[in-house]
Amino acid sequence: MKLASFYADGRERIGVASADGSSLIELPSGGDHPRTVLELIEGGEAAWAAAKAAGGGKAYAVDEVQWRAPVRTPSKIVCLALNNSANASRIMKGPKHPATFIKPWSALIGHGEAVLCKPHYGRCHPEPELAVVIGKGGKDIAAENAYDHVFGYTAHNDITSPTMRDEDTFFYRAIHPKGGDAGEIEYVDSWVSYPGRYKASDTFSCLGPYIVTKDEIADPHDLRVACYHNDRLVTEDNTRNLTHHIPAVIAFVSSYMTLIPGDVISMGTALQASAKGGAVQNVDMNKFGGTVSVEIEGIGKLTNGVRWE
Amino acid sequence: MKLASFYADGRERIGVASADGSSLIELPSGGDHPRTVLELIEGGEAAWAAAKAAGGGKAYAVDEVQWRAPVRTPSKIVCLALNNSANASRIMKGPKHPATFIKPWSALIGHGEAVLCKPHYGRCHPEPELAVVIGKGGKDIAAENAYDHVFGYTAHNDITSPTMRDEDTFFYRAIHPKGGDAGEIEYVDSWVSYPGRYKASDTFSCLGPYIVTKDEIADPHDLRVACYHNDRLVTEDNTRNLTHHIPAVIAFVSSYMTLIPGDVISMGTALQASAKGGAVQNVDMNKFGGTVSVEIEGIGKLTNGVRWE
Repeated sequence: MKLASFYADGRERIGVASADGSSLIELPSGGDHPRTVLELIEGGEAAWAAAKAAGGGKAYAVDEVQWRAPVRTPSKIVCLALNNSANASRIMKGPKHPATFIKPWSALIGHGEAVLCKPHYGRCHPEPELAVVIGKGGKDIAAENAYDHVFGYTAHNDITSPTMRDEDTFFYRAIHPKGGDAGEIEYVDSWVSYPGRYKASDTFSCLGPYIVTKDEIADPHDLRVACYHNDRLVTEDNTRNLTHHIPAVIAFVSSYMTLIPGDVISMGTALQASAKGGAVQNVDMNKFGGTVSVEIEGIGKLTNGVRWE
Repeated sequence: MKLASFYADGRERIGVASADGSSLIELPSGGDHPRTVLELIEGGEAAWAAAKAAGGGKAYAVDEVQWRAPVRTPSKIVCLALNNSANASRIMKGPKHPATFIKPWSALIGHGEAVLCKPHYGRCHPEPELAVVIGKGGKDIAAENAYDHVFGYTAHNDITSPTMRDEDTFFYRAIHPKGGDAGEIEYVDSWVSYPGRYKASDTFSCLGPYIVTKDEIADPHDLRVACYHNDRLVTEDNTRNLTHHIPAVIAFVSSYMTLIPGDVISMGTALQASAKGGAVQNVDMNKFGGTVSVEIEGIGKLTNGVRWE
């Protein structure tokens, strides 16, 4: 089942894709039913059963609705950095485990909505990523139980501004305790970068079009991921090239952070070099405009334009 | 008014501090009233008026309740890095504007709850900070209107693990577009650090005890901030030493990220050297245990212990 959040006929709605993908069939929402996809996820199997029992509602043509991010207010979007085997040779120092940062839901937009760029944002490029949507929350989840906690999958364009990243990187004299005496300090010259602007600005988290429930994805580690600028193929990769796979990632992340139903874990950028492909870093959305698409096999094609302020 | 979230008599409640601070007077919650402090904030003046009209409820002694973070599910906790004039001389490279990172609400705990440490977390130290709670959301908020968007203030202990920060710092060959040709790339050796673990792990955001509404704080930039380990004064500072002040910070942050009612902006660590004080970096909670307190003049004293797993 492909589940969407959308706006049509004057209000926000939730729906499922028709078999041919041409329309969204509205699910009952409000009253005794979940008002949002997030509430549907929170409601678990009982909420699903009730939605199905209520039967299909009105069909909306997919090109006539305003898409939203399929989950609109998750507690967090946990994003993995540098989680692709194509990176390995470029990393001189780095952890062997997943490294993560957080995007807030205020950064989310859906399929067809525009990425906001401002002149001083500098370079802004796409990062095509498979995203996991958590169904059942938990902490300290064992890898062998990880898929029990997965609701489904969607596509994520993790918009990134390397210009703002560079600006928000400090080289500074960090204070550390001096060995042996808890009351003394020493200075250690350190680099530290803060992703608040360059990863978490409004519209920097494009999600969708749908959440595809996990039963429809036979192997999430065998999906083609492509990124297009307008209709030009920029990157072509496969989720098999992710360094850390979903069970290990859910186990690792949940050993630090409690996962909440609806949370999104974005698995890191697909960027394996391909004969036809280029580098996502060359697609400066702030400079070139146009549309950027993230297409994931079995999940769909997420397309977003650019608007400037 | 001092507003709290707490658990007592078998359920979550919201309340206001009594005049002498010895008890929490329950506010009506549920039914026609907001269920949470966050909903009370979202409800604006009408929700306040209704809560006041309903009159005071049962009084709970402050030492008999289980405190929670005063707002429990904000969309984001925006934290400022290195925002103290004591840092200036230690920064060799860094932006002139606020640098930020995001903590999710899963990291929140309240007064009296314990910070979770695990052996492999390494060093974990407190960071005492004044936190602003947003009342009215918005984006592109002008500095001169910033206080219109403030609901109140609270104390934040921005728990930090420099061990995990070091582990999650990469030195790598970043891909950049090569000047002049959009299709070619070059490599630029870069440092980048990811705060998912070292800043956003469960319990790494201690908040409270109360939100003090803004009418009770004459000048948020003239408040003593102290940090204690057990009863030993570690740091003593004043919010006047913040590099970027609240109006400028709200204007800057909201020019990138839409602020949502209940959002928390943590203003950065108080750490001005004092004759009596030490360095928060020396207080390794994972090693020494005990309690850590953040005390802010006019706001209260937030105390948290440590538990190990």
